Amino acid sequence: MRPVAVLGLGVMGGSLVRALSAAGQAGTPVRCWSPDPGEVRSASALPGVEPLPGAGAVAGCAGVILATPLSAMPGLLDRMAPALEADAWLQDVGSLQRPVLEWMAAAGLAPRAVSAHPLAGSERSGFAASSPDLYRDAPVYLSPGQATPATRAAVSAFWEGLGARPETVDPDEHDRRMAWVSHLPQLVSAVLADTLREADVSATELGPGGRDTTRLAGSDPGLWRDILAHGDGTVVGALRRVARGLGEQADALESGDADLAATLLERTRGWRSA
Amino acid sequence: MRPVAVLGLGVMGGSLVRALSAAGQAGTPVRCWSPDPGEVRSASALPGVEPLPGAGAVAGCAGVILATPLSAMPGLLDRMAPALEADAWLQDVGSLQRPVLEWMAAAGLAPRAVSAHPLAGSERSGFAASSPDLYRDAPVYLSPGQATPATRAAVSAFWEGLGARPETVDPDEHDRRMAWVSHLPQLVSAVLADTLREADVSATELGPGGRDTTRLAGSDPGLWRDILAHGDGTVVGALRRVARGLGEQADALESGDADLAATLLERTRGWRSA
Repeated sequence: MRPVAVLGLGVMGGSLVRALSAAGQAGTPVRCWSPDPGEVRSASALPGVEPLPGAGAVAGCAGVILATPLSAMPGLLDRMAPALEADAWLQDVGSLQRPVLEWMAAAGLAPRAVSAHPLAGSERSGFAASSPDLYRDAPVYLSPGQATPATRAAVSAFWEGLGARPETVDPDEHDRRMAWVSHLPQLVSAVLADTLREADVSATELGPGGRDTTRLAGSDPGLWRDILAHGDGTVVGALRRVARGLGEQADALESGDADLAATLLERTRGWRSA
Repeated sequence: MRPVAVLGLGVMGGSLVRALSAAGQAGTPVRCWSPDPGEVRSASALPGVEPLPGAGAVAGCAGVILATPLSAMPGLLDRMAPALEADAWLQDVGSLQRPVLEWMAAAGLAPRAVSAHPLAGSERSGFAASSPDLYRDAPVYLSPGQATPATRAAVSAFWEGLGARPETVDPDEHDRRMAWVSHLPQLVSAVLADTLREADVSATELGPGGRDTTRLAGSDPGLWRDILAHGDGTVVGALRRVARGLGEQADALESGDADLAATLLERTRGWRSA
C-alpha cells in the first residue's frame, strides 16, 4: 500500500492521522509533517505513522492532505508540486474553498486536487486536542474544481472510509455559506467573550449557557486571521445585522419593552426545533 | 417527616422534584403543583411525590420552593402566605433576586424567605426536560434578605443535601452580574440565531460551534420576557457594547484587516483558559 501524507498536525490534521492510524490495521501507512517537531514526534508514535522527510517529499504517496492554516498552503503547494505522483490525489481541510482551488490550480495541480471542508473541529488547538473520531459522521463538503473523475472518486472513498459523509458543493456558494454558518458565530462568540472580559466577568462564573455561547472564543487566533482574511466579505454584512438586532433589543429593553425579546425567542425557538 | 412543596414543574421545578424523590428513599415526602395538570400527573408518578391540593395549600410543609416564571410569583405568595407554617422556609429559583425578595417581604414572609438562584438549567422546557442531576455540583446563589438564622441554615442544608454548592450573595450585585453572565449570552445567542434564520440558514447546517453558540436561542420566550422585564437595566449597556464590538470587527474586515479579529481572539482565548 502507498502511504497517505498529512501536512499539518493540529486538531484537523492530527485527527486525520489518528483516524488513519486507527483504521490502518488493514494497511494504509501514514506520513506526517508539521513545522512543530514535537507534534511530528507525537504523531509518529502512532501505529503505521512515520515522519515525512520534508514538507515537499510526497513522492510515492497515494494522496496528500494539507491541514495547515491557509496562509501556509501556497508555499507548500509549490514545494510538493514537482514530487506529487501523477495518479495521486491532493486535498486540503482549510475551510475556505475558492482561494485554495486557485492556489492548487496555480501550482498546476488542478486535475489531482479537491478542496475538502469537514464540518468538524474544536476550539482547542494542536495535536493534543486531536481525536480519532473527529470526522465520524461529520459532513465533508467537497469542491472538486477541475479534478478528474478518478481523483473525485478517490477523495470520496477516502472520507467514506473514515466514516464521514462527503457531499459535493459549489466552492463560491460554500464559502458564502460558511460566512454565516461558521465565521459569524465565531466572531459573535469572541466579541461576547471580550465584552464579558471587559466587564470583569471571569469565564468560571458562567453557567452552561454562557460557557457554550463563548466556547468558540477559545479558538486559534492565527488560524482565524487566515480564514477571515480570505473570506469573500459576506461576514461583514452578517456582523452588521447581528449588531443591529442587538441594538434593537437594547432600545426595546431601555424603554421597558421585553416583548420584543419574547417574540425574538418565539422565532428562534421555532427555527432551532424545525 | 414533613413534606417539601415545589410549585412549578418545568425544568427547574421538575428537576427539584426528581432530585428530592431520588434522595427521598430516606424519607422527605414531596408535594407538587403546576398550572399544567399533565405535569402534575407526571411528577406525581415519582416515588414519594403527591399533588398539592392547591397552589396555596402549603400548610404542614417544612419548606416551599417557587419554581414558576417570575410574573406568577406575587400571586402565589399572596395565596400561600396565610398557610405557610411559622417554622417553614420559603425559596424561589426565579434567577433574579431583588424583585423576588421584595415580593416575599410584601407578602409578610421575609423572615422565612431566601431567594435562591441555581446556576443550572436547560434551553429545553417543561417537566419532560427535567433531570434529577441538574443541580448536582451547581453553584446556588442565596440572597437571604431578612431571613432568620434558622431559615438560612435550613436553606443551605437543603441545597447541600442535593449535592449543590450554596453560596451567599448580595441580591443587587447578583442581579447586575446575571445581566452579564446570563441575560447577555441569552440575547446574543438569540439575535445570532435570528440573523441566521433570516439568511435562510437552517439549524441543521450548523457545525458543533454554531450549534453551541445558538443553543440558548431555543429557550422559553415567556420565561425570558419575565426575567428581562424585571432586570435592573444593566443588560442594555451590555448589549450595546457587544453591538459596538461587532461593528468594529465589520469595519476592520471591510477594509481588509483581519488582524483586529486575531487580537480579539488572543484576548478571549486567554480569558477562557485563565
